[in-house]
Amino acid sequence: MKVMVGGTFDPLHDGHMSLLSRSFELAGRDGEVVLGLTTDQFASRKLHRIRPFDDRKKELIDFITNRNFTAHWIIEPLGDQYGSALDADFDAIVVSEETLPVAMEINKLRRERGKKKVDIHQITCVLAEDGRWISSTRIWRGEIDVHGRLII
Amino acid sequence: MKVMVGGTFDPLHDGHMSLLSRSFELAGRDGEVVLGLTTDQFASRKLHRIRPFDDRKKELIDFITNRNFTAHWIIEPLGDQYGSALDADFDAIVVSEETLPVAMEINKLRRERGKKKVDIHQITCVLAEDGRWISSTRIWRGEIDVHGRLII
Repeated sequence: MKVMVGGTFDPLHDGHMSLLSRSFELAGRDGEVVLGLTTDQFASRKLHRIRPFDDRKKELIDFITNRNFTAHWIIEPLGDQYGSALDADFDAIVVSEETLPVAMEINKLRRERGKKKVDIHQITCVLAEDGRWISSTRIWRGEIDVHGRLII
Repeated sequence: MKVMVGGTFDPLHDGHMSLLSRSFELAGRDGEVVLGLTTDQFASRKLHRIRPFDDRKKELIDFITNRNFTAHWIIEPLGDQYGSALDADFDAIVVSEETLPVAMEINKLRRERGKKKVDIHQITCVLAEDGRWISSTRIWRGEIDVHGRLII
């Protein structure tokens, strides 16, 4: 199966790792995963500072190559919310609870363009020690580390 | 992974087969699939006649046993939209485009009960020859067969 997933991945935390692992699992042994990585310009809309694209890409590649994923994969720059997901031929998109609306919008726009809709796999956000979501913003604020442990 | 999926499955059409196959795929070789099958009373809210529970169950069992699924599976009666999905410990629910709102409601109710939310896998409905969804209602009306072929 050909699967798409996207994000800024800065820093790569347990929620991202869950999203990426599930994407490869869903793609299957001989499948394909297209990883959309936000460009610096698109990521700059975030409220906190973001590391440069190449640094984020390197961390993503290190994570993937350290796992035993067998599916083919490719990293694409994501210059907006949709990237190539509106026109590419693929089977499923993997999203978090936060980004489910984007996946639904992608299917709506694909339909308008006469493209086949894709399956949507929404994973539940990984919780930090305090029961709230792990997020880059919380890590950036110094509340938690990438594994969701509280920083006292 | 432990996966839940539900339906009336009357008759079992290509859309159902896609839903069931994906559920077993997602569960994985050693996983578990809980199949909720609507009771006759709950299914009676449909606008057309429904075959008895035991007949629908037999067709479901025949389909599953004719495939090479290795995951463990069980059929549970579904007396309402939720069945055991509000309280059971499981990982993911598989739904169609039509039943995505039910899965989202299940997560909302689980959260209210202090249960862990589950991942949601939404498959795109299978299309009939005319580009519209395959549905039991259309089959019952005599418009299409279980594979979505138009009946002239």
